[in-house]
Amino acid sequence: MSEIRSESELLFRFLNGLQPLSKEVVDYAMEQTFSITVKKNALIDSVQKNYKECVFFVINGLVRGFIIDEGKDITTCLALENTLIGSIRDPGNISPTYFEHLQAIENSTLLVVPYNFIDKLYDKFPETNILGRKLLAIHFNMSQERSILSRIPSAEARYKQFKDNHPKIKFRIPLKYLATYLGMRIETLSRIRNKPKSAS
Amino acid sequence: MSEIRSESELLFRFLNGLQPLSKEVVDYAMEQTFSITVKKNALIDSVQKNYKECVFFVINGLVRGFIIDEGKDITTCLALENTLIGSIRDPGNISPTYFEHLQAIENSTLLVVPYNFIDKLYDKFPETNILGRKLLAIHFNMSQERSILSRIPSAEARYKQFKDNHPKIKFRIPLKYLATYLGMRIETLSRIRNKPKSAS
Repeated sequence: MSEIRSESELLFRFLNGLQPLSKEVVDYAMEQTFSITVKKNALIDSVQKNYKECVFFVINGLVRGFIIDEGKDITTCLALENTLIGSIRDPGNISPTYFEHLQAIENSTLLVVPYNFIDKLYDKFPETNILGRKLLAIHFNMSQERSILSRIPSAEARYKQFKDNHPKIKFRIPLKYLATYLGMRIETLSRIRNKPKSAS
Repeated sequence: MSEIRSESELLFRFLNGLQPLSKEVVDYAMEQTFSITVKKNALIDSVQKNYKECVFFVINGLVRGFIIDEGKDITTCLALENTLIGSIRDPGNISPTYFEHLQAIENSTLLVVPYNFIDKLYDKFPETNILGRKLLAIHFNMSQERSILSRIPSAEARYKQFKDNHPKIKFRIPLKYLATYLGMRIETLSRIRNKPKSAS
């Protein structure tokens, strides 16, 4: 792999670990992508106007996806470093029922990856389809975990499951966001968290 | 596309629509995959012993994924024709916390696609990575829908969302399975269903 921008170096290292990237691919990616910084609590669409035509790679920070249902804000996903966030286009042309908004929970740096760059990349460097496939498999499994997590009947078991899978971020997410992600009231989450250590 | 087995013809047509398949790829797939029939209510693992080393394409019928949590059976996904079901290997090597069992809800025919065939296919015909990527994008979006669905606070809104997305299968799934999928009690689901037509 050629020299890379220091800011996104860890991200490119991660990608290169999944699928070796040629110098040409890295150079092309550096030319066609760019990073943005998003302040804590800001919506991504306030920073990146054409955000519906991009996906974002979290270089550092923490971003959540959320929907608004009957006026209620529901956290639907959480994305840490080296995670893609944003809508993935569906080749089956099924449009999602809910629009997922994106918000930085911490000051974050994101790599903006426009769809039209992705299309050109797949076309110009067919081997990048392997990387695309592997990234989608990883994100499919993350999505499966989110989907299964929310169907676990007991609130305590849902919190335990989340904590076990994300030991590093459990205290980085405001309670109100984590509660809707885990499908419980803030009071319930607070009570579960404040239980003696052996239990929570 | 070359002539194909009539049984899986619709499936191959669907795949060919996503990404044109050469005669060589279709011939190789026909040689290396096979179909099984699974009777209504049977577990897939009772029919296909090495089912953990395969994914399954639903040729016809209806299959559900479920987990057992504290002795409780929770439906986690539903797969109709042209849908992949089974665990997708994670290139990030994160093993799922819950093991998803598979069960036919109707008499079903499934195409068994062994992992080692998939590996050989990607290696021998690199263009099949494009098909793999597109299939994963479709299934990622399905998983996202499942994940968002279960976080919608109102039980009625969850049922409406499911019904709108799956108008054809809502009456093909036994209430007890659909209730856990939608995160509600059987009585609640039954009550919502029996409301006057304008409301349910």
